[in-house]
Amino acid sequence: MAHLGSNRYGKQHVRVLRKTVEGTKHSVTEVSADVLVEGTFDKSYLSDDNTQIVATDTVKNTIIALAHSHLGPCIEDFGLVLGRHFVSTHGHVDRVHIEIREKVWERMEVAGKPAPHSFQAAASGEPFTRMAVSRIGVEIESGVRGLHVLNSTNSAFCGFDHSEFTTLEDATDRIFSTLIQATWRPMSDDVDFKDARKRVMDAILKVFVENFSPSVQRTLFEMGEAALSAAPSISEIELRLPNKHYFTAKLDGFGIENDNLTFLPQNEPNGEIEAVVRR
Amino acid sequence: MAHLGSNRYGKQHVRVLRKTVEGTKHSVTEVSADVLVEGTFDKSYLSDDNTQIVATDTVKNTIIALAHSHLGPCIEDFGLVLGRHFVSTHGHVDRVHIEIREKVWERMEVAGKPAPHSFQAAASGEPFTRMAVSRIGVEIESGVRGLHVLNSTNSAFCGFDHSEFTTLEDATDRIFSTLIQATWRPMSDDVDFKDARKRVMDAILKVFVENFSPSVQRTLFEMGEAALSAAPSISEIELRLPNKHYFTAKLDGFGIENDNLTFLPQNEPNGEIEAVVRR
Amino acid sequence: MAHLGSNRYGKQHVRVLRKTVEGTKHSVTEVSADVLVEGTFDKSYLSDDNTQIVATDTVKNTIIALAHSHLGPCIEDFGLVLGRHFVSTHGHVDRVHIEIREKVWERMEVAGKPAPHSFQAAASGEPFTRMAVSRIGVEIESGVRGLHVLNSTNSAFCGFDHSEFTTLEDATDRIFSTLIQATWRPMSDDVDFKDARKRVMDAILKVFVENFSPSVQRTLFEMGEAALSAAPSISEIELRLPNKHYFTAKLDGFGIENDNLTFLPQNEPNGEIEAVVRR
Amino acid sequence: MAHLGSNRYGKQHVRVLRKTVEGTKHSVTEVSADVLVEGTFDKSYLSDDNTQIVATDTVKNTIIALAHSHLGPCIEDFGLVLGRHFVSTHGHVDRVHIEIREKVWERMEVAGKPAPHSFQAAASGEPFTRMAVSRIGVEIESGVRGLHVLNSTNSAFCGFDHSEFTTLEDATDRIFSTLIQATWRPMSDDVDFKDARKRVMDAILKVFVENFSPSVQRTLFEMGEAALSAAPSISEIELRLPNKHYFTAKLDGFGIENDNLTFLPQNEPNGEIEAVVRR
Repeated sequence: MAHLGSNRYGKQHVRVLRKTVEGTKHSVTEVSADVLVEGTFDKSYLSDDNTQIVATDTVKNTIIALAHSHLGPCIEDFGLVLGRHFVSTHGHVDRVHIEIREKVWERMEVAGKPAPHSFQAAASGEPFTRMAVSRIGVEIESGVRGLHVLNSTNSAFCGFDHSEFTTLEDATDRIFSTLIQATWRPMSDDVDFKDARKRVMDAILKVFVENFSPSVQRTLFEMGEAALSAAPSISEIELRLPNKHYFTAKLDGFGIENDNLTFLPQNEPNGEIEAVVRR
Repeated sequence: MAHLGSNRYGKQHVRVLRKTVEGTKHSVTEVSADVLVEGTFDKSYLSDDNTQIVATDTVKNTIIALAHSHLGPCIEDFGLVLGRHFVSTHGHVDRVHIEIREKVWERMEVAGKPAPHSFQAAASGEPFTRMAVSRIGVEIESGVRGLHVLNSTNSAFCGFDHSEFTTLEDATDRIFSTLIQATWRPMSDDVDFKDARKRVMDAILKVFVENFSPSVQRTLFEMGEAALSAAPSISEIELRLPNKHYFTAKLDGFGIENDNLTFLPQNEPNGEIEAVVRR
Repeated sequence: MAHLGSNRYGKQHVRVLRKTVEGTKHSVTEVSADVLVEGTFDKSYLSDDNTQIVATDTVKNTIIALAHSHLGPCIEDFGLVLGRHFVSTHGHVDRVHIEIREKVWERMEVAGKPAPHSFQAAASGEPFTRMAVSRIGVEIESGVRGLHVLNSTNSAFCGFDHSEFTTLEDATDRIFSTLIQATWRPMSDDVDFKDARKRVMDAILKVFVENFSPSVQRTLFEMGEAALSAAPSISEIELRLPNKHYFTAKLDGFGIENDNLTFLPQNEPNGEIEAVVRR
Repeated sequence: MAHLGSNRYGKQHVRVLRKTVEGTKHSVTEVSADVLVEGTFDKSYLSDDNTQIVATDTVKNTIIALAHSHLGPCIEDFGLVLGRHFVSTHGHVDRVHIEIREKVWERMEVAGKPAPHSFQAAASGEPFTRMAVSRIGVEIESGVRGLHVLNSTNSAFCGFDHSEFTTLEDATDRIFSTLIQATWRPMSDDVDFKDARKRVMDAILKVFVENFSPSVQRTLFEMGEAALSAAPSISEIELRLPNKHYFTAKLDGFGIENDNLTFLPQNEPNGEIEAVVRR
């Protein structure tokens, strides 16, 4: 005998761009959105009866129509509009799971002057937000993925634990490169999400640039500490820092002394350090 | 004031291939493994003291060394070996999070005869297992991802809910294509994982081939029901079925009648149906 | 002063699936097509006059409409239809560059019985054809890309040239894995392309399975020789064999003797061997 | 009877990062290099004799060793060093085919101050160079790939040719987004490649930002014209401009007037416009 457990469905990767025009100056926001609904849909699983199903095509149309009236520079605000729409217009939808990813377009410049309507894809680091919206409240988190950075010095790794399988030697000066993934939890659904995002990101990157790194763990904690201190509107932050290794090239066999200048970037495997830092 | 919350670290994407030789017949198992450890590592986050850290390089070496003695055709068995090694040899490691993905190599044939030592990459569908191993027990799940299938008929979608944003029309005969993701939970860490995998997969694919699909939801539930029935050693199964749409080409503007024969595969957006089916 | 040199334009990645129905048995062919036209389009480059431009949207519509009447199991035949259509209906189009890639769907089986309308994505190896069609003739080639294979023995590499930067040692028994890319040139546009494809592929894979490989170069030549011998309708074949390295794991530091059983798959860099074999 | 035609082999995707230290200020150059050699290697194809083969592993070692002494901010200069090394040290190598791709690391800033040793992955647009180096000369080209830009207005497409398969309507105000691929040919191997690159890129982007686009073709030609005018050291430039479509969302069915503000980004198919502009 089989029973239906937790379930949800909807549309993923719905892409939309909204343009804003102020005089001759344009701005654009482009997103890719996933909207999955949870609620009373048992009939569709347990029989051929589809009457409870809001078609995923309708979910797509709704995202696009609401983008026209509500998509602006803050992806969290748009997510909340989407979530509240579905629980308020469909009585049998109890909860809406949303993820919105932004494709960031940066204003171009020519000869130092900002262009009125020309944009280039921003560097790495995809902003996102995830939320679950129900009639009684919202769980929301914000973040960034794949922010690719590198320190060419000021990083070391010494004095670690040894076992029978340890061959790594102490490194007093190494390259430290990572694709930062940070996810933070706003105190409520009523904070200034853009402001929080800027404070968190500035704090994290300042630590990366300025602090000596004795281990990825230590740098991760300092990033989290700085983010919490800079952004009072967030309650906790999770950081994931894959260690994208750069090995020092061994050139002495060729009569060349490599004084820590030439490195071999490694694709895989990678170290991976993940931790939550909270108040 | 900042505090360290839950945390874990380790190595990801450690690739290894193990060959088995029986006379002139070879077999190969290739995997990519992630091993993240949880335990007492506070010093490394809260200070410059690395003495608690088992280097991720050591984690990598351990995976490779243990693959030599223990990697065989069952990825779950290898995962258990890895997990138990870390909790038994490192007193301050409390829990090990493991994911193993298999790159499946299928034996080639020439003129209907199986080749002794030649293999080709198998079709879509990546087997994986995920587990958390601690001193007191194991949580384990097994699955497959990205198994790409298509029914050219026997699928419909009619009689669904309508709202102001609904434009989709009833479809009495449509293409149904999906990348099956199935994750099932064995009853214990002592079952025949290979046997369960085969039973689950055969049951899921039989439903896909044989059952009329009035909705993705219905097919999903029938797949889950069949898997539970075929594999007594699993307690529940989660299925994720992205609906990779194929739209009927509109050709009447060109004086061509498209009698449901020519379709436009859509890359995105996709529908997404996810549910757990349990006993 | 600037001048317009060679130029072409069109639509890329036009995807279409054509279903064929024989009683209760369905077959499907899915392709992604690029069609770029060459001809008299100077006005559009040198002025604001677009009257010469066949819109790329029209190119897309044409591909889809012609797929309805002409897309079948042979992608070369469909390419020829497309090319001839454009040069015959647009007087100022002199040449059409076409690439068609097939997404191969294999018929599924349940309990050894072929399914009437269910398919799964085939294993690696994407068939393609490329052609340039003009009013006076056709240049055409056919091929396959990314066919991922592995020999777990029967491969060696010894006795090679040495220089100051050579550190590689002779390997008497190694893994040989590659993603075969083969491109062959039919004698004319009037051959049985499906038959040639089958003959070429069977010949290549037979060499891979049966022949001892003293170097990738040698195996490549033997593959080409066998393909030419098996397929009289082709005049030459180019093979590209990236050498996807598997390094023998060094385990002796851990007191483990690795008797050529455990290997480390390398993602990059890769060797690359390319050659044309002709009659 | 089979004969060996043109052939080449070597190593691809050799990654290396070179650090430069000036006091406390670091700079980094990271590349991925392909080096394929052409020459007298017949024995390896036609027999089991490997004595002519410079192992691809040796090619890799050579790239890394030469990177230590010669990799700097100009990838073309490094390519020339590589090519000349192989033809001068291996008598039976006649020609070396090289492609070098740069992973651009941009200096980070904190509070407006440039960081001494911290970098972030640059935005889209991968610089590359390709060359064939022989004893008698060099053929070289330089370029950029995947530079992702978008104009939210100032683009139209009207008055084009019509056929039976034309359904596209005139667009007087559309979004124009593309991933610029530009490849230019320096006059010789003795020009200032860095300077030429900067001049070409600035000229192309200035056209994108400032010029009204009546068609992608027209904009392409204007870009080429501007590049040739700005960079006297190049003889010609090829531009490839995939048209990444953004369709205007049709919202009138929902009682919403979309005054050219909400767009649906399309993944595929894409237009593709390619042309050479020469002096």
